[in-house]
Amino acid sequence: MSSINEYIFELGKNAKKTTTCMARLDSDAKNEALLQMAAALEEKVEIILEVNKEDLKRAKEMGIKSSLIERLSLNEERVYSMADGLRELVKLADPIGNVVKMWRRPNGLEIGQVRVPLGVVAIIYESRPNVTVDAVGLSIKTGNAIILRGGSEALQTNKTLVKILREALTDSDVPVDAIQLVDIPEREAVMALMKMNQYLDLLIPRGGAGLIKTVINNSTVPVIETGVGNCHIFIDSSAEIESSRQIIINAKVQRPSVCNAVETLLIHQEIAPKILPFLGEDLKAAGVEIRGCQQVRKYIPWAKEAAEEDWSTEYLDLILAIKVVSDLEEALSHIAKYGTQHSESILTTDYNNARNFLHAVDAAAVYVNASTRFTDGYQFGLGAELGISTQKLHARGPMGLEALTTLKYIIYGNGQIRK
Amino acid sequence: MSSINEYIFELGKNAKKTTTCMARLDSDAKNEALLQMAAALEEKVEIILEVNKEDLKRAKEMGIKSSLIERLSLNEERVYSMADGLRELVKLADPIGNVVKMWRRPNGLEIGQVRVPLGVVAIIYESRPNVTVDAVGLSIKTGNAIILRGGSEALQTNKTLVKILREALTDSDVPVDAIQLVDIPEREAVMALMKMNQYLDLLIPRGGAGLIKTVINNSTVPVIETGVGNCHIFIDSSAEIESSRQIIINAKVQRPSVCNAVETLLIHQEIAPKILPFLGEDLKAAGVEIRGCQQVRKYIPWAKEAAEEDWSTEYLDLILAIKVVSDLEEALSHIAKYGTQHSESILTTDYNNARNFLHAVDAAAVYVNASTRFTDGYQFGLGAELGISTQKLHARGPMGLEALTTLKYIIYGNGQIRK
Repeated sequence: MSSINEYIFELGKNAKKTTTCMARLDSDAKNEALLQMAAALEEKVEIILEVNKEDLKRAKEMGIKSSLIERLSLNEERVYSMADGLRELVKLADPIGNVVKMWRRPNGLEIGQVRVPLGVVAIIYESRPNVTVDAVGLSIKTGNAIILRGGSEALQTNKTLVKILREALTDSDVPVDAIQLVDIPEREAVMALMKMNQYLDLLIPRGGAGLIKTVINNSTVPVIETGVGNCHIFIDSSAEIESSRQIIINAKVQRPSVCNAVETLLIHQEIAPKILPFLGEDLKAAGVEIRGCQQVRKYIPWAKEAAEEDWSTEYLDLILAIKVVSDLEEALSHIAKYGTQHSESILTTDYNNARNFLHAVDAAAVYVNASTRFTDGYQFGLGAELGISTQKLHARGPMGLEALTTLKYIIYGNGQIRK
Repeated sequence: MSSINEYIFELGKNAKKTTTCMARLDSDAKNEALLQMAAALEEKVEIILEVNKEDLKRAKEMGIKSSLIERLSLNEERVYSMADGLRELVKLADPIGNVVKMWRRPNGLEIGQVRVPLGVVAIIYESRPNVTVDAVGLSIKTGNAIILRGGSEALQTNKTLVKILREALTDSDVPVDAIQLVDIPEREAVMALMKMNQYLDLLIPRGGAGLIKTVINNSTVPVIETGVGNCHIFIDSSAEIESSRQIIINAKVQRPSVCNAVETLLIHQEIAPKILPFLGEDLKAAGVEIRGCQQVRKYIPWAKEAAEEDWSTEYLDLILAIKVVSDLEEALSHIAKYGTQHSESILTTDYNNARNFLHAVDAAAVYVNASTRFTDGYQFGLGAELGISTQKLHARGPMGLEALTTLKYIIYGNGQIRK
């Protein structure tokens, strides 16, 4: 075993040792620790900014592009906002200890399922240092130990943040070793995390498609995948015209760079002539490029012609693909073929079409008469967001605190033996 | 791509095509199909037994060991029992379509989570042909398409069973292609299944530790692991003596070859002298070999001395490791160190110790005053059992129909756009 492997396994072992204690902590103790961490961040804001400056200097010297530099850079406001994030968590209900079901068997056994922490969670992420604090807060709130692996360009900032957070725990009931940072930049460390089944219960990759694919393909540890969103809105023949125009503009323009923005509009042939000319103007005014099928270009002559690949592209930009379809069934087939099972919406006033769409579409979030932009933990009212899962196992769609928990059976008996 | 890969991907594609239809089926339609399949099995019993004889003949010629031959062999009763299994599923409530939660947001959006099928499930299993029928029944009941990969020694039997089951679907609303059999024996087919993420939503390995390990290490498709059970019972100082003796004997002897049988007994030092001499006699009478620590051998002189490896061994046999511990904390540490997070039980009359044990032990099933042998889908009242998951993600402990389902968010709006 290489020394990097040994180092990572040591972190795993140390985190694992805290899990019995973590699982038994009362909410009060966890909340108290969150408040202490928040106070410590604010108190040490100058040290954090100083170290962050060094990371920024190195990053600039290495010629890292400006969007990454922007994400890496901290200021007083950003540090205070990290602290506020921890205080927000204090207000959320603790999911741990909830008995979600309990029943009595004919032999008198009382069998229940209680919500418990997963154990040790690892997260691999890129340059934003606020993820460090968020992830620590979420894991402590849910009674999990965490192993953090941030981007190498943020390493000194993350080391400082973790040092402050760990120090803040020394006066609390939360064991310091519940927070572990991989403080070496080598990529071999990531490989070691992906194979550390004996100490890790979950691995969450947060970052670009390349990182996520690497983790899916190589990890033997269970993974939650947060993936792409090639989201559709289907305007049915019975849709309300004004409302449809507003929803399309919102779903495309309000924040085009995110996974729940709409990428393809499907429109029923009967309503196309009534909406497309106006919608074309709306989109043009908003600076949106349109890539349409032949029929779309009849109503929006300036639209570019869509190529086959447009139907499967997540633009994350001010570009919208539009296709005229003959009916709901064609829309459903298109979504089944090109969709990424993220967020899909129908705009309609027809009861049966609304019901059929809700039943037939296989996606994390299926909407009637609303913008796809609501697929988000805060918008859904979960109070926190760990990301949007595009897998079906364990957690699907926006993930709140419960995604970091599991259930265990508890059984109360009075001497039962199996016949 | 090799021809085997192409063949498996073709099965995946065909299964995937049925998922929209499968997800929309009413319970009545699925139950009708289950009844037709049951009738078809009974009607074709002679054909099944004839083909099974050929498989048995080949297996004997190849020198396959008698326990496997026994598992492979069918008779009229076993075929009727497969049909009865399908009829039992008809009686169970259909989990699909249940809205498990629904709430209203301040902006008027109504957001719910509805239970839906996973999509396409594959199962890799060994020689028992009844698993073929069970797995098909469970997947159809839950609206999933299934891809079956049985043992090569049962291939002709499985081909015949699947042919009969598919034919029975031709007069039903369930698409025939919802059942797919890998009807080639090559191991490369298993490798192809493990990498077929675009068509498979879940892969379940059912079989020996070797198979499960191979799948965990190689599959990029999400897996549910059913693993080993190194189960403990801790007899606390306050335990009831008579009841404890009965529970230990039950947990060890009633069926020693299964994963929920007890493998190590931990006993509080204060109660050891009061129980061990009698328990020793009970175990001797039941033919159980004891491997004990030094203190155990004071009370049961004929016990063998336990070696370090005994504490981590799943005997699956009439052997019991016994260790005297100084208190509950030592028992908890021992379980945390050697347990496999399957089933753990405390026998006690002390309220605080019962509560602490329930909280502190990290396992799929944690008992107070009952035999570990109850960890089972039927015993828990789930009505069906897909196996006992020893992982924490998605499903933990005995798995019923819900383990083959996921949740999707459904959102009812009336024109909401994100601010």
